[in-house]
Amino acid sequence: MLRTHNCGELRKTDVKSSVILSGWAHKIRDKGKVIWIDIRDRYGITQLIFEEEFSGKNTFELAKKCGREYVIKIQGEVSERLSKNPNMDTGDIEIKVFEIKYLNKSDIPPFTIEDETDGGEDLRMKYRYLDLRRSPLQKNIKLRHSLMQETRNYLNSKKFLEIETPVLIKSTPEGARDFVVPSRMNLGEFYALPQSPQTFKQLLMVSGFDKYYQLVKCFRDEDLRADRQPEFTQIDCEMSFVDREDVLENFGGLITYLFKKILEKDLGEIPIIEYNDSIKYYGSDKPDLRFGMKFHDITSIVQGKGFKVFDDSQVVLSINVKGCSNYSRKQIDELTEFVKTPQIGSKGLVYIKNNEDGTLKSSVDKFYSSEDLKVISNENNSNPSDLILILAGEKKQTFSAMSSLRLLMGDKLNLRDPEIFNPVWVVNFPLVSWDEESKRYHAMHHPFTSPIEDDIDLINSSPEKVRANAYDLVINGVEIGGGSIRIHDRVLQEKVFEILGFTKEEANNQFGFLLNAFKYGTPPHGGIAFGFDRLCALFGGKESIRDFIAFPKNTSGRDVMINSPSQIDNDQLKELGL
Amino acid sequence: MLRTHNCGELRKTDVKSSVILSGWAHKIRDKGKVIWIDIRDRYGITQLIFEEEFSGKNTFELAKKCGREYVIKIQGEVSERLSKNPNMDTGDIEIKVFEIKYLNKSDIPPFTIEDETDGGEDLRMKYRYLDLRRSPLQKNIKLRHSLMQETRNYLNSKKFLEIETPVLIKSTPEGARDFVVPSRMNLGEFYALPQSPQTFKQLLMVSGFDKYYQLVKCFRDEDLRADRQPEFTQIDCEMSFVDREDVLENFGGLITYLFKKILEKDLGEIPIIEYNDSIKYYGSDKPDLRFGMKFHDITSIVQGKGFKVFDDSQVVLSINVKGCSNYSRKQIDELTEFVKTPQIGSKGLVYIKNNEDGTLKSSVDKFYSSEDLKVISNENNSNPSDLILILAGEKKQTFSAMSSLRLLMGDKLNLRDPEIFNPVWVVNFPLVSWDEESKRYHAMHHPFTSPIEDDIDLINSSPEKVRANAYDLVINGVEIGGGSIRIHDRVLQEKVFEILGFTKEEANNQFGFLLNAFKYGTPPHGGIAFGFDRLCALFGGKESIRDFIAFPKNTSGRDVMINSPSQIDNDQLKELGL
Repeated sequence: MLRTHNCGELRKTDVKSSVILSGWAHKIRDKGKVIWIDIRDRYGITQLIFEEEFSGKNTFELAKKCGREYVIKIQGEVSERLSKNPNMDTGDIEIKVFEIKYLNKSDIPPFTIEDETDGGEDLRMKYRYLDLRRSPLQKNIKLRHSLMQETRNYLNSKKFLEIETPVLIKSTPEGARDFVVPSRMNLGEFYALPQSPQTFKQLLMVSGFDKYYQLVKCFRDEDLRADRQPEFTQIDCEMSFVDREDVLENFGGLITYLFKKILEKDLGEIPIIEYNDSIKYYGSDKPDLRFGMKFHDITSIVQGKGFKVFDDSQVVLSINVKGCSNYSRKQIDELTEFVKTPQIGSKGLVYIKNNEDGTLKSSVDKFYSSEDLKVISNENNSNPSDLILILAGEKKQTFSAMSSLRLLMGDKLNLRDPEIFNPVWVVNFPLVSWDEESKRYHAMHHPFTSPIEDDIDLINSSPEKVRANAYDLVINGVEIGGGSIRIHDRVLQEKVFEILGFTKEEANNQFGFLLNAFKYGTPPHGGIAFGFDRLCALFGGKESIRDFIAFPKNTSGRDVMINSPSQIDNDQLKELGL
Repeated sequence: MLRTHNCGELRKTDVKSSVILSGWAHKIRDKGKVIWIDIRDRYGITQLIFEEEFSGKNTFELAKKCGREYVIKIQGEVSERLSKNPNMDTGDIEIKVFEIKYLNKSDIPPFTIEDETDGGEDLRMKYRYLDLRRSPLQKNIKLRHSLMQETRNYLNSKKFLEIETPVLIKSTPEGARDFVVPSRMNLGEFYALPQSPQTFKQLLMVSGFDKYYQLVKCFRDEDLRADRQPEFTQIDCEMSFVDREDVLENFGGLITYLFKKILEKDLGEIPIIEYNDSIKYYGSDKPDLRFGMKFHDITSIVQGKGFKVFDDSQVVLSINVKGCSNYSRKQIDELTEFVKTPQIGSKGLVYIKNNEDGTLKSSVDKFYSSEDLKVISNENNSNPSDLILILAGEKKQTFSAMSSLRLLMGDKLNLRDPEIFNPVWVVNFPLVSWDEESKRYHAMHHPFTSPIEDDIDLINSSPEKVRANAYDLVINGVEIGGGSIRIHDRVLQEKVFEILGFTKEEANNQFGFLLNAFKYGTPPHGGIAFGFDRLCALFGGKESIRDFIAFPKNTSGRDVMINSPSQIDNDQLKELGL
């Protein structure tokens, strides 16, 4: 037998018990006549004590020679510690060791197995199996496990069925690039790995499974940004005989349940915001609602007063920053530098200080009377000691720039507390957007998203004005899930394909099976998918998803640990006709 | 709102309630002044009744025009049926319908949506989404869901962590063919899809996760036999600090738990049989233990009596078939034909009838005295009215042939009751077997399997005699899982690679990361993997796994519904450098 207990479970009540433990030598303190070794496993750490008197010469010698990360098995007796450690679950006891066996030795690890390690990113990726021994990563992977189980518990309780969809499917040019898999049995033909099980889950609704979910790997062959992975996990769901409210209730419920179960936090009722309002007030479809600082459109107020910069702008936006009227010249300059960086792209920043004494002082006093400033101040509900920040320019750029400035001010004022979670449903996205490059409309969500019924008459004349029955769940400015009520009518689906520039032949070639299925009694249905890696990071209070994935790839899509991708045999290539 | 209830939940206690149901028009009976429609969803079937008097003219007309598989929404009142149907959960009630709406029409389906359908295999695969509407397939998919959840419930309760391993990994020539995925970002290089997460789960043990599992898709690019799928699902598990008994207890426990929970069957203690004994007594490493009929090796008894066929044979085997001494000439001839088919390959069949009166009569009376026959009969523990069947020939072929004959006799005597489940652990497989074609040893299990400690000295001199610390779980002659205690010592792992014909360079190139990991304190570990599709079929009482997979591929590896694999764009090929 390799252990009677794990390294995290012995307590004062176990004193005098004879035990066997196995684990890693975590820390070793050799005080000459006494040696302490902390033995570690997934469940915790237990202190071992060796003295020649009770350990015997042999065991004591082996303890002396034991190195860090050796795998050891010990037999001994639980005894109460003289100096207890209240920070450890096992801190009341230690084990008097009578026998030790090396189950395996260890070279000195390339970095320390500690919460704060000395290993750089590249080294830790190469030795991922050692990095995963560190307590922060162990915690992340356990959190991920718990999130998976609780997600299933909730969905099972709502009668959802977990159904696996295929991984070897068919390539579709719509959306991101597919990974493809050459077929040996059908030379010259390829499978594709799914970017999402979208069409399959819709077919499951056609089959009458009513409520489906899956925690499923999806794949995108994209040029990776810092926080993208070529393979990622989704909580993928679909329901029949539902409208938008049913979906929001069900999956708002899921997220609320997870926050309660895992973090013991009450999310409360999740508000809903229209896409148009989200852009209007926050300049983004992923608004961080932990704080207000809404945009005010002051274009009509400020134009026509002789200030050419504003007069030539498509839009002039302002935000009111509470309690910052005392910002120094240097602080204002820093903000100006920020909005002028190429990523933000504004030409400059205008401010109005609402001084503590109620007077108003702006950087454009030359053009605006104190009466004018008063009107702007009122429009912004500004109070004494507040600071109004103003950006102007081309519409899209200015909204986006103001969004960045708002988030920056939120950071500066500590309004973005990582312990607070403010979810919001963003709804009624545009159905399509015009793409200048390809000179055609692209689906904002995907081609299967239903238009809002009221807008269907616009579909031929002004498709860009049609709102989609789509919704995103955004928490603290991060999109964690999105979905839509789907089209379930063949004629409407064909029309949407047409608007998206598919010829009849292309539509049939790629999605004929779905259009066909729509002939045989397809129920109204809708669903959602959550980015599971992102959700784990959110719950773990971290920005990067990588440390919530056991074996992630780097930004070049490589697994540097196993060295993949790699070259394959010529025989293999030949068999595949490549 | 699209429904207040589902189609399976209304009872007598709901009479007088006003309800809304949505579902499919399953059956329609139009009796002129009364129309009944059975409305169906995943949860059940409810009878609707329409009469012009209470339904109104409009609704009645729509009911008249409603076709099979139309998706309808109805509003009405629950009323008690005059003639109840005890075979339906909702058989006490029907709905007086006041309003009906077609949510979607349906063409006439290409085959009937009934338990026994008129659709052929090809048609049903093409319209899989319609085939999945049929009740037997709905049941299978729900069973699969339950098995997934209960598997996790059990493993979670034992502190296993569900951890995802990557799908885009590295090709290894060992074992079956890999599916490969060309990398666009690393031209000329390929990922491979995993045949199993073997090395990753071992690395998770190196990382100290202690107990891991995953329900995971695996991939094999093999020429498909009738019941193989290019992608399949495994219950994949690994544990640290365990010996064989720990693993068998844990996972025997899993299977016992599943049988109890899902089928309400007590498996009892799972017996263990040595691989050598399994071959000796049943001619197979997948013995069907629902019945005895063990082999008896009568070579030494029957040789040297002048019967050349036996004298020239490597082995002579017999089985005793209870109560079949009255087999007719014709019946014996049929058995003879069976063993002489090319798949079985025996030259003939010898029998000894143990007549009801205790006399013995054989087909080789010319060579054997009644004393000789008596000895054979005793060896077989044969009683009056039994039939002894004898095969002789080359060793391997004869054991295999006798195994087939034993199973056939089991079938004939109805000893293979699909309601009875007899599990057995087959243990101590050979570590390696000699492959004549490639002139080298192949791993029986895989290269990471540990030899039995007692046999390690034989590893250089007679590797084929070394037993592996491996185990298979076999139920009713079907292998449903297999695993082993793994090697955790770098030197031993290198030795096994060497025996398997890897050069040092090849071993390092393919498995360097694992050999490297073994340097840093790898714990003793072992695990198992269950074929989940096969397990579902076993629980569903069926032979074929295909109807337990939502969207399976056919025997050419094609998904005929979506038409995959298929050709891809030239642009796509170019980008991939193909």
